Amino acid sequence: MAKAEVPEVVVARLPLYLRALEYMAERGHDLVSSSALGAEAGVSPAQIRKDLSYFGEFGKQGLGYEVAYLRSQIQRILQLDHCWNMLLVGAGALGHALVNYRAFEGHHYRIVAVFDSDPAKVGQPIGHLVVEPMQGLCETIQAREVTIGILAIPAESAQVVAEELVSCGIRAILNYAPIHLVLRPGIRVSYLDPVASLQSMSYFL
Amino acid sequence: MAKAEVPEVVVARLPLYLRALEYMAERGHDLVSSSALGAEAGVSPAQIRKDLSYFGEFGKQGLGYEVAYLRSQIQRILQLDHCWNMLLVGAGALGHALVNYRAFEGHHYRIVAVFDSDPAKVGQPIGHLVVEPMQGLCETIQAREVTIGILAIPAESAQVVAEELVSCGIRAILNYAPIHLVLRPGIRVSYLDPVASLQSMSYFL
Repeated sequence: MAKAEVPEVVVARLPLYLRALEYMAERGHDLVSSSALGAEAGVSPAQIRKDLSYFGEFGKQGLGYEVAYLRSQIQRILQLDHCWNMLLVGAGALGHALVNYRAFEGHHYRIVAVFDSDPAKVGQPIGHLVVEPMQGLCETIQAREVTIGILAIPAESAQVVAEELVSCGIRAILNYAPIHLVLRPGIRVSYLDPVASLQSMSYFL
Repeated sequence: MAKAEVPEVVVARLPLYLRALEYMAERGHDLVSSSALGAEAGVSPAQIRKDLSYFGEFGKQGLGYEVAYLRSQIQRILQLDHCWNMLLVGAGALGHALVNYRAFEGHHYRIVAVFDSDPAKVGQPIGHLVVEPMQGLCETIQAREVTIGILAIPAESAQVVAEELVSCGIRAILNYAPIHLVLRPGIRVSYLDPVASLQSMSYFL
């Protein structure tokens, strides 16, 4: 099936299945039913079967799914079979946490450079890296074949920096700045805004 | 309309409208069309009108929305007219970033206590707070009327800690641990997993 035809919500659930399969593999499970996988991923078994049917036939009637096989297939679908180089803009407290977040490397995502516009931060160590000045952004993106940018900067500067990243070749942005980014079609943006998440829960409390 | 009848996806978009209205208020706008609000929030004008119609009539035909009025109404709908006390579990790098994240206070969310199971971290300062041992969890939740818990701990311990939080009275969890939490009905959980966000973008690259 053509990529354009798979709904984004379906694609967004694949990482949840992958995460659940990783836990099951760690615990030594070889086979998993869609019910058990659903309980682990927080998705109904029917939804899992429907989502996976966009990409092929992965289960065996009455047996369920082979954990290792389904895991490798979802990794392939999500293009996780090679390492993605990422670049971080923003060397504040969140930036430090992100550089030190081990789950990135464990999932084939690697922060290869950190940039900040604050001259006081440039040259300072951050994890195993050193904060670089914004002027070097484009050169690094091209030299290191960086595809993904992470924005851990205030909302005020996020749009301008995002545009610069895209003009230098970045195709996906993980955006921690609490602002909607307006970028050209084809550029992917994921938003991680804790305040928005809290606000959508407050409604139900 | 009864709360149960408003789809969760609609509620999840209200914070985006609120954020856009805040920016418009800062820039001195008094009135906003659904088109302009949509451009700022990243949502189509038709979707905005449909979403808001769940809660009442907020616009004036041909004039658009009054920024201050719509903002106050969405704040009221999301129950943001009072301050929410939050508790953080996990005093690692991410925990430090969260304690120092100023946007929480600016939006009436306040981290009132930080807990960690690591004896080496207990007693250490973290922002304006001091890391407390896990034993004090329940007492703090009840004494400080804490409704929201933030988990910034490894996946392995997240389920157990989440259950403890809920048993002590927590009703909503902002979960940074990369794991699906299984909790009793009525407990809200929001997930902020950067790896899952990255993986759902990789598909399209």
